[in-house]
Amino acid sequence: MSSATTDQWQARFDRLRSNKAFELLVITIIIVSALLIGAKTYELPPLVARSIIFLDWGITFFFLTEITVRFLGEEDKKRFFHSGWNVFDTLIVVVSLIPIQDSELALIGRLVRIFRVLRMVSIIPELRTLLNSLLAAMPQLGYVALMMFIIFYIYAAMGSTFFADINENLWGDIAISMLTLFRVMTFEDWTDVMYQTMAVYPLSWIYYLSFIFLSAFAFLNMIIGIVVNVLEEEHQRQAKADARAAGEPTLAELRDEIRALRGLMEERRRS
Amino acid sequence: MSSATTDQWQARFDRLRSNKAFELLVITIIIVSALLIGAKTYELPPLVARSIIFLDWGITFFFLTEITVRFLGEEDKKRFFHSGWNVFDTLIVVVSLIPIQDSELALIGRLVRIFRVLRMVSIIPELRTLLNSLLAAMPQLGYVALMMFIIFYIYAAMGSTFFADINENLWGDIAISMLTLFRVMTFEDWTDVMYQTMAVYPLSWIYYLSFIFLSAFAFLNMIIGIVVNVLEEEHQRQAKADARAAGEPTLAELRDEIRALRGLMEERRRS
Amino acid sequence: MSSATTDQWQARFDRLRSNKAFELLVITIIIVSALLIGAKTYELPPLVARSIIFLDWGITFFFLTEITVRFLGEEDKKRFFHSGWNVFDTLIVVVSLIPIQDSELALIGRLVRIFRVLRMVSIIPELRTLLNSLLAAMPQLGYVALMMFIIFYIYAAMGSTFFADINENLWGDIAISMLTLFRVMTFEDWTDVMYQTMAVYPLSWIYYLSFIFLSAFAFLNMIIGIVVNVLEEEHQRQAKADARAAGEPTLAELRDEIRALRGLMEERRRS
Amino acid sequence: MSSATTDQWQARFDRLRSNKAFELLVITIIIVSALLIGAKTYELPPLVARSIIFLDWGITFFFLTEITVRFLGEEDKKRFFHSGWNVFDTLIVVVSLIPIQDSELALIGRLVRIFRVLRMVSIIPELRTLLNSLLAAMPQLGYVALMMFIIFYIYAAMGSTFFADINENLWGDIAISMLTLFRVMTFEDWTDVMYQTMAVYPLSWIYYLSFIFLSAFAFLNMIIGIVVNVLEEEHQRQAKADARAAGEPTLAELRDEIRALRGLMEERRRS
Repeated sequence: MSSATTDQWQARFDRLRSNKAFELLVITIIIVSALLIGAKTYELPPLVARSIIFLDWGITFFFLTEITVRFLGEEDKKRFFHSGWNVFDTLIVVVSLIPIQDSELALIGRLVRIFRVLRMVSIIPELRTLLNSLLAAMPQLGYVALMMFIIFYIYAAMGSTFFADINENLWGDIAISMLTLFRVMTFEDWTDVMYQTMAVYPLSWIYYLSFIFLSAFAFLNMIIGIVVNVLEEEHQRQAKADARAAGEPTLAELRDEIRALRGLMEERRRS
Repeated sequence: MSSATTDQWQARFDRLRSNKAFELLVITIIIVSALLIGAKTYELPPLVARSIIFLDWGITFFFLTEITVRFLGEEDKKRFFHSGWNVFDTLIVVVSLIPIQDSELALIGRLVRIFRVLRMVSIIPELRTLLNSLLAAMPQLGYVALMMFIIFYIYAAMGSTFFADINENLWGDIAISMLTLFRVMTFEDWTDVMYQTMAVYPLSWIYYLSFIFLSAFAFLNMIIGIVVNVLEEEHQRQAKADARAAGEPTLAELRDEIRALRGLMEERRRS
Repeated sequence: MSSATTDQWQARFDRLRSNKAFELLVITIIIVSALLIGAKTYELPPLVARSIIFLDWGITFFFLTEITVRFLGEEDKKRFFHSGWNVFDTLIVVVSLIPIQDSELALIGRLVRIFRVLRMVSIIPELRTLLNSLLAAMPQLGYVALMMFIIFYIYAAMGSTFFADINENLWGDIAISMLTLFRVMTFEDWTDVMYQTMAVYPLSWIYYLSFIFLSAFAFLNMIIGIVVNVLEEEHQRQAKADARAAGEPTLAELRDEIRALRGLMEERRRS
Repeated sequence: MSSATTDQWQARFDRLRSNKAFELLVITIIIVSALLIGAKTYELPPLVARSIIFLDWGITFFFLTEITVRFLGEEDKKRFFHSGWNVFDTLIVVVSLIPIQDSELALIGRLVRIFRVLRMVSIIPELRTLLNSLLAAMPQLGYVALMMFIIFYIYAAMGSTFFADINENLWGDIAISMLTLFRVMTFEDWTDVMYQTMAVYPLSWIYYLSFIFLSAFAFLNMIIGIVVNVLEEEHQRQAKADARAAGEPTLAELRDEIRALRGLMEERRRS
């Protein structure tokens, strides 16, 4: 095949993959696959169950075709795998292709089929940008998250040091203590946990209350941090849009106008 | 009846329905009807129960009259049913008129009488605008809601795949799993659910914690989105009001003043 | 006593009541009275209990003296009772003076002594302004609160209509249903309530979920309303302070400067 | 040793303590010490347990060395203890040095080792500023916290007055009542508490609901106060940065430019 023909095909695939109808078809198939996953959690008559297996393979092959179209439609084949979403889509399709008999691996096969629903996010651009903005907010939370982890770790170490003998299931080791503290933080039956240790250490309410206040305070700080950040970005974006779009001059431009005027006057004065 | 007389009557009804006293009477009747609904949930002596039934019919006929007045007061009869509230009011009144003996339908009759309280919203303009602003905030939440549904669906599919054998009541099928996940999201006895599955899969705390973090994060994002939107609108509305109301010129107007001045100077220079 | 002497005494009392040391003494006595109230909830040896009763009378008479000083220090006696806090203080003191033997009324006597702690708010100006700002935020919440009440009322009416036979204690009448709904709104064991009714009406989860979403949405709206209001006021207050305090001219002043300049130029041109 | 040599050594230590590699080493050792604390909460084979004790002493001596380096690197020895973090670090190290046999004191020894993890905050500057900003937000919450304490105190006094006979464990004295009220505020099984007292005082729901509303309102106020404060500071910081960084003149500068122009004109007019 000459390079020209390849290019022609590539362009054709490119046109296909940006086709609105093709996109809608893909979304429909993803929804059908999601419904199948849901259906499989119900007890079904054997006939329906068998037809679902067939449908499932149909979907797998449709996805395989779609990924191939996407790949062939890409001008620069290397760039295709630079996008995390393309890698994710390819992985999901490849793993669903592997025929699995083993019951252990069968579970992974089912999981992969469930993760197909995530392809919804990779297909709909609005969801993709939403997820990206979620991920973009992550790093700025880094230090507050570290602070919170330190609080959890210290309290968990104290908890398993003092309370391990009282309730092995809640304070047995540091990992389980952190889970218990997360439970306390969500206020889920936290008084039961407290009353149990208060029977031995009557002052242990200080431990719980200080933990709740500290974690609530750190959490609040995190939320306020996010809100302030979002508002700031919003504000900057808007301030620019405002001033420029409406043809509003900046104060600096006004100053330059006035200075030009002054220049004119001083010129006349000298003349 | 000549068209002139009809117009006269229409104007009369129009005046009646915008009459403050008439409006107050309608609100009073709605409150009485709400109180009757409340009273009916208590055990009442037969005499009171019977008088309530009479009162109920009285209210129904009052509402019928009121709707008729509203309808006749409308200049353009077609436009009357363009308002969703008018359709709602008419439906409520018409359904309460149907005499129901059947015990199944009797429940619907009672429900319709309960929904009469919603007429409060259709009568008081402030409540109507409040509801409209609530509904207006809905569409912008669309994609976050879709994202959250996808998260719920995937976790529910995983839950009913892995945990269905552990507790049929909580993880039996995908619908019941979603309900269980909503319960986990509200932190309602979520540790009981977790401890049960951790007995079989010791690492299943990852499932719950990742779900809580993801859903909390998406939820937070939703709230921040609303807050930012509201603040932005508020800010724009206010910025305009500020600048204009106080007779403040815009920067562009100032620039034009300076340019006019310059024009004058340059004109003199040439002369 | 001549009017001059009265005025002299009034001035003396006025000076006393605005005396910093006197204020501190009052605050100390209030704290002592609060500690006594706390102490009385513990089992005490008879000697301590008896001395507390004496201290209690001492405090009552100190408060009586203080109120008298305040009253006599007021120039315009009528204005004294225009302040809600003065009326509150007087009432508390007068009621604690009444000697009560009856066990029923004795409870009221104890309650009044507890409410003495609230005098802290009436004495410390910062707490008073805080409370006032809380109360000032109330009316603007009026319509959202009404909306929320309507939602509660309708759901409670539905709940006691359908679920009264399932659990008399939770859905017996409309009042108890509203309490149950408030419980559901705080997510307190709401799934227990739901699972019970789902056993009879499998679709009743719609009732609970729609209620949770509606009430959460109305609640969110309320909070956003308050935040926006607070920020707006803050913004206006600050904008004024900003522009004025820094000696910054407004845009309108700048325009006037430019116009004056133009006037000068045009004057010269005509000359 | 001559003063010159001392200075030389001091400079050498100063260079060492600001060395990036040294800092990383310290952070690594802190992490290792945190991991040891975690490891000790698990049941370990005797060999591992013994080697942990050796590691522990190693860490203690490393910390001792590090603190000494820091101290010797400080030019002004007195200023060293002005920093709270230095005092904290020294205390932690000194207390871990004391060999403890007594089982009571052994617990304190373990606690001190746990608090070593906090050295992470003293080493990483970002965490230190985060903690400082948390502490800086504290005082402005003072009056709301006092208000909340008064609300808690009054309700606790009422609770232990009326409900002490119903449940000694929840309402026995004012301290335990405050704990119960905190539990009610976190919505943790609050209806169980309420139903118990409602069996004796059917109207006691007023007590709980009014408390929940009051405390929620005060809490909300606190949060809004923080948010507004943060946004305000952000706004001021940004407004300055905006105007200055972009070389934007202030309105006052513009006015001065215009006035200078006017001066020029008036000068010419007189000439």
